[in-house]
Amino acid sequence: MLNVAIVGASGYTGLELIRILHCHPEVAVTCLTSEQSAGRRISDVFPTLRGRCDLVLENLEPVRVAEKADLIFTALPHKAAMEVVPTFLRLGRRVIDLSADYRLSDPEVYGAWYETHLNPANLKRAVYGLPEVRRAKIRGAKLVANPGCYPTSIILGLAPLVKKGLIDLKGIIADSASGVSGAGRSARVDSLYCEVNDGFRAYGVGGVHRHTPEIEQELSLLAGEELRITFTPHLVPMDRGILSTIYAVPHKVTTTERLVELYSAFYAGQPFVRVLPAGSLPSTAFVRGSNFCDLAPLVDARTGRIIVVSAIDNLVKGASGQAVQNMNLVCGFPECMGLEGLALFP
Amino acid sequence: MLNVAIVGASGYTGLELIRILHCHPEVAVTCLTSEQSAGRRISDVFPTLRGRCDLVLENLEPVRVAEKADLIFTALPHKAAMEVVPTFLRLGRRVIDLSADYRLSDPEVYGAWYETHLNPANLKRAVYGLPEVRRAKIRGAKLVANPGCYPTSIILGLAPLVKKGLIDLKGIIADSASGVSGAGRSARVDSLYCEVNDGFRAYGVGGVHRHTPEIEQELSLLAGEELRITFTPHLVPMDRGILSTIYAVPHKVTTTERLVELYSAFYAGQPFVRVLPAGSLPSTAFVRGSNFCDLAPLVDARTGRIIVVSAIDNLVKGASGQAVQNMNLVCGFPECMGLEGLALFP
Amino acid sequence: MLNVAIVGASGYTGLELIRILHCHPEVAVTCLTSEQSAGRRISDVFPTLRGRCDLVLENLEPVRVAEKADLIFTALPHKAAMEVVPTFLRLGRRVIDLSADYRLSDPEVYGAWYETHLNPANLKRAVYGLPEVRRAKIRGAKLVANPGCYPTSIILGLAPLVKKGLIDLKGIIADSASGVSGAGRSARVDSLYCEVNDGFRAYGVGGVHRHTPEIEQELSLLAGEELRITFTPHLVPMDRGILSTIYAVPHKVTTTERLVELYSAFYAGQPFVRVLPAGSLPSTAFVRGSNFCDLAPLVDARTGRIIVVSAIDNLVKGASGQAVQNMNLVCGFPECMGLEGLALFP
Amino acid sequence: MLNVAIVGASGYTGLELIRILHCHPEVAVTCLTSEQSAGRRISDVFPTLRGRCDLVLENLEPVRVAEKADLIFTALPHKAAMEVVPTFLRLGRRVIDLSADYRLSDPEVYGAWYETHLNPANLKRAVYGLPEVRRAKIRGAKLVANPGCYPTSIILGLAPLVKKGLIDLKGIIADSASGVSGAGRSARVDSLYCEVNDGFRAYGVGGVHRHTPEIEQELSLLAGEELRITFTPHLVPMDRGILSTIYAVPHKVTTTERLVELYSAFYAGQPFVRVLPAGSLPSTAFVRGSNFCDLAPLVDARTGRIIVVSAIDNLVKGASGQAVQNMNLVCGFPECMGLEGLALFP
Repeated sequence: MLNVAIVGASGYTGLELIRILHCHPEVAVTCLTSEQSAGRRISDVFPTLRGRCDLVLENLEPVRVAEKADLIFTALPHKAAMEVVPTFLRLGRRVIDLSADYRLSDPEVYGAWYETHLNPANLKRAVYGLPEVRRAKIRGAKLVANPGCYPTSIILGLAPLVKKGLIDLKGIIADSASGVSGAGRSARVDSLYCEVNDGFRAYGVGGVHRHTPEIEQELSLLAGEELRITFTPHLVPMDRGILSTIYAVPHKVTTTERLVELYSAFYAGQPFVRVLPAGSLPSTAFVRGSNFCDLAPLVDARTGRIIVVSAIDNLVKGASGQAVQNMNLVCGFPECMGLEGLALFP
Repeated sequence: MLNVAIVGASGYTGLELIRILHCHPEVAVTCLTSEQSAGRRISDVFPTLRGRCDLVLENLEPVRVAEKADLIFTALPHKAAMEVVPTFLRLGRRVIDLSADYRLSDPEVYGAWYETHLNPANLKRAVYGLPEVRRAKIRGAKLVANPGCYPTSIILGLAPLVKKGLIDLKGIIADSASGVSGAGRSARVDSLYCEVNDGFRAYGVGGVHRHTPEIEQELSLLAGEELRITFTPHLVPMDRGILSTIYAVPHKVTTTERLVELYSAFYAGQPFVRVLPAGSLPSTAFVRGSNFCDLAPLVDARTGRIIVVSAIDNLVKGASGQAVQNMNLVCGFPECMGLEGLALFP
Repeated sequence: MLNVAIVGASGYTGLELIRILHCHPEVAVTCLTSEQSAGRRISDVFPTLRGRCDLVLENLEPVRVAEKADLIFTALPHKAAMEVVPTFLRLGRRVIDLSADYRLSDPEVYGAWYETHLNPANLKRAVYGLPEVRRAKIRGAKLVANPGCYPTSIILGLAPLVKKGLIDLKGIIADSASGVSGAGRSARVDSLYCEVNDGFRAYGVGGVHRHTPEIEQELSLLAGEELRITFTPHLVPMDRGILSTIYAVPHKVTTTERLVELYSAFYAGQPFVRVLPAGSLPSTAFVRGSNFCDLAPLVDARTGRIIVVSAIDNLVKGASGQAVQNMNLVCGFPECMGLEGLALFP
Repeated sequence: MLNVAIVGASGYTGLELIRILHCHPEVAVTCLTSEQSAGRRISDVFPTLRGRCDLVLENLEPVRVAEKADLIFTALPHKAAMEVVPTFLRLGRRVIDLSADYRLSDPEVYGAWYETHLNPANLKRAVYGLPEVRRAKIRGAKLVANPGCYPTSIILGLAPLVKKGLIDLKGIIADSASGVSGAGRSARVDSLYCEVNDGFRAYGVGGVHRHTPEIEQELSLLAGEELRITFTPHLVPMDRGILSTIYAVPHKVTTTERLVELYSAFYAGQPFVRVLPAGSLPSTAFVRGSNFCDLAPLVDARTGRIIVVSAIDNLVKGASGQAVQNMNLVCGFPECMGLEGLALFP
C-alpha cells in the first residue's frame, strides 16, 4: 500500500482526491491538512465522507506530513504550494502538485502572470503532467505539475492539429466555459448561488486569464515554435465541467471525416480520451465525475474553419482525476486504477 | 461471473444500474433491452457509457433475455413488469423488479391504486427488498420487489420509532421532496427544464400518491397494526435526491440525544444507513450518487414533536443501488460490493 | 412625488425595492445607503440598474437621510434597524422596516430569540404590516414592521382556519422551503453555488428558527388564544420563492370544496391573494417576481387532515413588494400601484 | 386602445407577450389562439396569469382573429406563420411576426435553410425589425419580421464594426450560448430538466444553425458586401438569456477605450442598448426579464483581436420585448412604452 497525504484537503480538489482514492486498491490516505479547518474531522467538513473517511485535519507542517506519506498531493493555491514542495522533495517524497507553481518552465513567465517564483531550482525537475502528451517523462518524475483545467481541455483538443502542423498558428481561438467549482470553495459574493444561478457570463476576457501562458507553453512545444492564442473563459451555472469550443484555420481544406480519423489515430490507446464519431458532440454532462476527455473535431464547410469541441470534468480530468492518473504512472500502478468510474448522469 | 440482463435499460434507473454494475467485480452485463431504442447502442443513448459499455439494445423478448442472463433487473413501468416477470421466474431466473408490481402484497390494494394485478400468484414469492428490514428473507428470494424511492426514505426514517412502539400511529406526516429524475425520462411538458427550474411545488397532495399504500404496508408490518399516514411529495429543481422530513408525536417526552442513541443502536451494522450526531442534518447533496441513507432524528422541545430528516439518492438507495444491494444478498456476494463509491460533491 | 430613501440598498431586498419603485408613478428614490459600498454607484453593484438608477450609495447618516426623504425603507439586518429608526421617527419620517426589529410586540420575546431590544418605546407604534389582516391600522401607521417571508406565507395560509376556529391549535405543522436569496447577499461558504446547487436540505429544525415567534404571535392574535407551531424551513436550489405546506387537524370533517369556498370568501377583494380552485396547486415559479400569494387549501380524505399549500416570492410578497404595498397604504396611494407586474415565467 | 391578438399564445414567447402587454397602457389583448390548448383558459396553461388575464384560447381561424384585433403578433413555428399572415395583411391588419418566415428577403435562401417559401409576395413588404438598425422603415411597416434571438445579440454586437468597415469580414466568429427557453415548450427528451441541468454543450456546430443566414444577411447589408460568419450556439442550464462572445480581426490596431467610444457614439440615443465602460462585462443575469442589450467591446492586446461580448434576454430583446418595441414604432407609441421594467435579479 502506498501512503499518501493530501495537503489542502478541505477544498473541492482535495475532496475529489479523497473520493477517487477511496476506491483505489493500492492507496491509503494517511494524512490530510487544512489551514482553515485543522482539528476538525474531514467528514464534518464534507459529510459525504462520514463513516468512510473520518481523518482529523492537521495543520500543514511539512516534515510531519512527509513522515506519514510516500507521496503527497498538494492541493493548495499558487504560492502556498512552492512554499512546501521543496521540503517534500528534499525528504525524498514524490509530489503531485495541483497548483500552478510548477507548470510554467520559465520563472520569468511565472513572474509576469503570478508573482516572483520562490523555487525556480525545482522547475527543471517538474514534469507537466498531461499523460497523453508526455507519459514517459511522468513515469520517472519526482515532481509532477498537474495541468490546469482549461489547459487540459484545450491542449488535448488541439494537440493533433498543432503537432501535425495542420493549422495556422496565429488563428487559434479557444472559447471555454466552466462550472462554478473551478472558482474554489472560498466565500466570495461572486460565487454565491444567487449571483451565479440562471446567468451566463464571460470573465477574464482579452488575454488576461492565468491559464493563457500555460496553454501557449504546451502548444508551442507541440508546434515546435512560439504561438499565441485568444482564450476566453465563461462561467456556467453548474457545479462541474469545462467545455472548450476551439476555432482554427487549416492550411488546406479538410473534412470532418478526415479529422475524426486523424484524432482517432492520434489518441489510439489513450484510455481517457474519447474521439466522437462525426455527427456526435460532447457535453460536460457526459463526463461528469469521470476522467474522460471527449473530443469532437469537425469542419465548418461554409467557412473552411476547423472547430474542435472538448469536454472534461474540471475536478477530475481537469484536476484530481488527472492527478491520480499521474500518481499511477509515477508509482507504476495500472494507469486507470481507481479511475474506472463512469460519469454520473443525470 | 454472474450474467445479468437489464430490461428497460434506456431509462434513468437502467442507466444507473449499468453505471453501478460497471464497477462490480462479479457481474457481467450481457443483455439490455429497450422498446424505444432497440437496435441502437446504449452508448448512443447515453454517451457517458461510450467505450465502456457499447451493447446494442434489444427488443424485449423474455425467453431470449432469459437465455442470456442468470439474473434479470426489470426497470420497467408498472404493468409492463408483471407481463414479463412470470416468464423469467418460470425459466428459473432470479428477478429484481424495480417497478411497483410486486411491492404490494395484497392484489386488491394494488388494484385500488394501480390497476388489476395480472400476476397475483407470484406476489407471495416476492420479497420486499429493503435489506435493513428483512435481509434474511431477501437472501433466498427468487423475486425481489425493489422498494420505491419515497418509501425507502420514509420507512428507514420511521422504522425504529414504529418498531419500538414509541409514537402515536395516527399522527405521522411525511413531507418529502424529490429531484426530477424521479419523473423518469419520458418527454413531458411538466418535466421540461423551463417548467421545473427555479421553482418548487407540491404534487399528489392529499393522499393520492401511489407510494402511499407501500409506505403504509411496510410501516403497518413493523408496527404490528394497521396505520395510515399523510404523505406529501414535492418537486425540487435538482437531478437527484429525496429528502423526507417526517413528523410524529411520541407517547412519552423524549430528547434528541435519546433518539440518536436509539437510531444508532437500531441501525448498528447496517452498512448504508448513517445516523447523524445531534446537531447535524442531512442533505441530498451529501448522498448524491451513493447508496447511503442519512438520518437525523430529533425533538422539537417546544411542541414535543419528533422530527426525522432522511436523505437518499432516489436513483441509488431509492432504486438501482438498492437493487444491486439486493442482488448481492440474493447471490451471496458481499453486501457492499460495487456500492462503495462515495457521493459526488459538488 | 414622494421622496423615498432605501437604507441598506446593496442587499437583495434593497435592489428589489429599487426595481419595484422604478415603475411606481408617485415615487422618486432620492437616497440609497450602504455600509459596504458607500461611494460606489448602485448600478456598479447591480448592473441591472445601469442607465435607469445610477445613484451613488451613501454612508448611513440618519439625519442626512431624513433630509432627503419623506419615507424611509430600512432594509437592514436586525439590530441595525432599531439603531436608526428612532431618529427617522423623531424627525417625522414614516418608516417601513424590513428587519425583524419591530415585528414582535413583546420586547422579552424579542430578547429571547434575538437580543436585548434597544427601542422598546417604539414597539407600540409599530404596526405589523400584513395588509390582508390589518389594512386599516397600516393606513395610519408611522412605523410599519414589514413581515418576514416565512411568516407571510404561513399566516396567509392559516388565517381563515385560525380566525374561524376550525382547527386544533396544537396540531399545526408548517413545512416550508425557500430559495437561496432568503439567506441574503453576504459571502458565506454555505451560500456558495456549489454548496447549494443540486441539493435539498432542512435547516433550523426543531423550533429554533427566528421566524417561529413571529408566526405564533400573529396566529395567536387571530385565534384569540396562545398557540405554538412546529415550523421546519428547507433550502431549495433556486433564487426566489417560498412554498409552505401546512398541516392542520380540523375540529369537524370537511371537504376541499368547502375549504376553497371558505378561503375565497375570506380573501375576497384582496388584490394579491389568489385562492386556487380544487385540483390546482401553487408553485413558486408561478409567483416569481410578483406580489401574489397563491393558496390551495385541501383535505386528505384518508386521514382527515387539512393541508394548505402557500406560495410567494420571498423577495416580493415576502419582503419588498409587501413593503411597497404597505407604503401605498400608508401614503394613500392605490394599493396595487407599482405592483401590477406579472410573474416572470419561465 | 389598440386591440391586439396573439396567435400561438401557449408557447413561451406568447406568454412573454402577454406579460409585457399587461403593463402597456395603450394596448388591450383581445384574442389568444393555441392549437394544442384551444378551449382552455390561458391562465390554466400559465397560472402566472390567473386573475389578470383569463382569456379562453381559441382555434386559429385567421378571419375571426382579424375581426378582433387591429394588430396581430404571430408567435408560431416557421411555416405556420406564413400560412396565416397573408390573410391578416389582406384584411388590413398589421402583423409582427416572431417566426423566421419573413426574415430572409431572398426566398431561395429561405428555401435552402428551411423549406419552399409559401408567400414570397409579402417578403418585400416585410421589414426586418431591429429598431437600432432600421427604425425609420419599421415605423411605416405593415409586416415586421421580428429578428431571431441569436441574430439580435450578434448583429447589435457587430454593427458598429461592420458598418464602419473596421474589421476583416472573413474573420468573424460568433460563439453564443442560450438558455433553454430558446428551445420552446414542446415535449422533447433533449429539453428535459435532467438532460439539461448541470451540463453545457454545443449544438448545431459547423454552420448548420438556421440563424446563420439571417445574421449574414443583416451584417452583409451593413457592410455593403457579402460576408460569411462562423456561428456556434451552445445550451446553458438556465431559463433565459443569450450571451454572444464575438471575435473579429481589425484592419488597424485599436484599443478598448476607442472601441467603447465608438460603440457609445453609434448607440447614442438607443434606449435599449447599453455600452459598458471598459473593465465591465455583461451577464445574461443582468438583463433577465428586461429589453436591454448590454455590450462590452474590447481588445485582446496580446493577439490584437477584437472581442465583443453581448447579452440579451432571448425572450425579451430576443423575441417578445423587441416585438412590442416594434409594435410601438409601428403604432406611433413611445418606443419604450411597456418596456420600462428592470431586470429581475436575482
